[in-house]
Amino acid sequence: PTSKLPDVGTSIFTVMSALANEHKAINLSQGFPDFNCPKPLMDLVTKYMREGFNQYAPMAGMPQLRHQIGQKTERMYGYQPDPDTEITVTSGATEALNAAITAVVKPGDEVVLLEPCYDSYAPVIRLCGGSPIYVPLALPNFSVDWDQVKKRISSRTRMVIINTPHNPTGAVIAKQDMDMLASLTSGSDILVLSDEVYEHMVFDGQQHYSALQHPQLRERSFVVSSFGKTYHTTGWKVGYAIAPPRLTAELRRVHQFTTFCTATPFQLAIADFIEEAQHYLQLPDFYQAKRDLFVELLRQTRFEAVPSAGTYFQLAKYSGITDAYDLEFAKRLTTGTGVAAIPVSAFYHDKTDHKYLRFCFAKSEETLRTAAEKLAKL
Amino acid sequence: PTSKLPDVGTSIFTVMSALANEHKAINLSQGFPDFNCPKPLMDLVTKYMREGFNQYAPMAGMPQLRHQIGQKTERMYGYQPDPDTEITVTSGATEALNAAITAVVKPGDEVVLLEPCYDSYAPVIRLCGGSPIYVPLALPNFSVDWDQVKKRISSRTRMVIINTPHNPTGAVIAKQDMDMLASLTSGSDILVLSDEVYEHMVFDGQQHYSALQHPQLRERSFVVSSFGKTYHTTGWKVGYAIAPPRLTAELRRVHQFTTFCTATPFQLAIADFIEEAQHYLQLPDFYQAKRDLFVELLRQTRFEAVPSAGTYFQLAKYSGITDAYDLEFAKRLTTGTGVAAIPVSAFYHDKTDHKYLRFCFAKSEETLRTAAEKLAKL
Ligand SMILES: CSCCC(=O)C(=O)O
Ligand SMILES: CSCCC(=O)C(=O)O
Repeated sequence: PTSKLPDVGTSIFTVMSALANEHKAINLSQGFPDFNCPKPLMDLVTKYMREGFNQYAPMAGMPQLRHQIGQKTERMYGYQPDPDTEITVTSGATEALNAAITAVVKPGDEVVLLEPCYDSYAPVIRLCGGSPIYVPLALPNFSVDWDQVKKRISSRTRMVIINTPHNPTGAVIAKQDMDMLASLTSGSDILVLSDEVYEHMVFDGQQHYSALQHPQLRERSFVVSSFGKTYHTTGWKVGYAIAPPRLTAELRRVHQFTTFCTATPFQLAIADFIEEAQHYLQLPDFYQAKRDLFVELLRQTRFEAVPSAGTYFQLAKYSGITDAYDLEFAKRLTTGTGVAAIPVSAFYHDKTDHKYLRFCFAKSEETLRTAAEKLAKL
Repeated sequence: PTSKLPDVGTSIFTVMSALANEHKAINLSQGFPDFNCPKPLMDLVTKYMREGFNQYAPMAGMPQLRHQIGQKTERMYGYQPDPDTEITVTSGATEALNAAITAVVKPGDEVVLLEPCYDSYAPVIRLCGGSPIYVPLALPNFSVDWDQVKKRISSRTRMVIINTPHNPTGAVIAKQDMDMLASLTSGSDILVLSDEVYEHMVFDGQQHYSALQHPQLRERSFVVSSFGKTYHTTGWKVGYAIAPPRLTAELRRVHQFTTFCTATPFQLAIADFIEEAQHYLQLPDFYQAKRDLFVELLRQTRFEAVPSAGTYFQLAKYSGITDAYDLEFAKRLTTGTGVAAIPVSAFYHDKTDHKYLRFCFAKSEETLRTAAEKLAKL
């Protein structure tokens, strides 16, 4: 029998991080901080382990954590989801995305994806027997072309996946976009999956606009977020999904048989930490300073960068530097120049190449300066 | 649109643990220890967190942990799987089971399940568009009736799932069983999923016989195990799958888009702990003492128990006590008598009732004594 995912190879994140390690390059490819998480948060994990909280959490997540997620959502978006019927803790946002798609996409269904997009959406849709329908984001700012989306919606459309702030481009969706999406889907069975894992990284005084803020939209949406991004703990694998009760019920049916539950001491520590320190309120400034530094440093290089509106990623155009295809160029940059980045073409199913690389700036000042020095030698 | 898993309700483990908590009953239902994990193991987690190992692990698992799994497998079963191409760390054994099934089962495929069996197998098969084919284990000892299995194998059979030591019955599969399975499947495309999460809990001088010890079988098998069971850390969600390279490649294609990776500080701590303390070698004696105590204590009650051959579960027959259906009886036992157990009928798709309850004896001596005192009052 043949593979169920014949065209899936090693992910670009694995490929580029491995290449960076091999060549001792500065790794600005895979998205993760090179600094540690807050010490009080770690100390809480230690405390809960010592107190014996090392056994299964409830399937939907620790009640304390779901309560805190509900409160935090209320503070941020003016909507308080019910911890019992609307919030599910998952083993990373990746599991939440997987469970949301798997819960509702059936053979023959279509799911609209806006490209470039994260690499897990399409394979999960395919595993369900569904088809991804690709709509490109519109240059120069990678905005959503809602007319194009409308044209690709059919009687088979089951879901539209959006991602804001957007990986890899840093674009941020506005309330008007959510209005368009709501009117496009209203009165239909079409669901929305809103990937908002970078919700706390929006810059220049802009606000993240969540699907949860939109009353019509949240009635048909799974909203996914991640503590890995928010607390510099991408390796703890704690994420969550918020959805109305009927959708949460379906998501949990899948989650129950995917991982059943998520690490107990991390859940308890994060619950306390959300309450104690409103750490996430400082994230926009924290990451904006890093973005500003990195964009400033790029001025000394031949890369062109329009400051990212959100996420911890910065796109940079290299068309003045070489004509090479961007994967090729990214590999040469890693092995030759000593800086690893992700080619944006990797986020398109057909490897569309707009001559952009994606750099992760969730790094110490020193790392960013060293990277820029190397890039300036190009 | 209708649910993809319409008949999946809240799992029996969730139901019984919640009922136990509500009625302050002694909880011998869901399988988890009521004592803590080894302190040196927790201290290693703290050490690695402080050293900054809080970001993504590689998709296949930390190399150190995969290396230690390979070495341990060699020591236990005389076969050393290749860490790079045959070992994958997952977010609990549940994720490993999910990924193995999802990687290979396609719409229309059949998967043979031996009942009673763990509740995650069938829903995952269904999500893939496959059909579970149920073969009952043979009373009185819940042994495999290979003639029955042979009769249910067809041109559509894609996989046979076995589980040894067996949850919920404690039965242990012998080399001859593995020989039968190998000859039944040889020359076909039929794969084997061997759930061996209780591999270190086999009693009375018997040895666990792993599918990995059987050269023909391991060529077609996914073998799944769990550090949660072995290190009293069911709440850390670290498990793994061992399979030949062609099957590991398919499993990782699914794992990559299910959770991507598993908690880094736990992986590093477990890797060191496997090496330092061959803790798992003491598990058979540790759990046999608990089983012996519990079976002895049950003598003072009206339950009848044949000592479990493996796992941390003990079946007990209650047919002399009541004619009630076992779910009904389990609920009454929790609310009235104050001891929660799992009705074995919950492990059958059609709720076949052989009048057994499953008790988890991974508990302190005090817990077991208090439970028995309550049970004796029946
Ligand atoms: C799970 S590895 C990928 C991390 C990430 O979100 C990214 O780099 O885009
Ligand atoms: C994941 S909850 C179920 C735990 C378990 O394996 C059991 O009780 O059988």
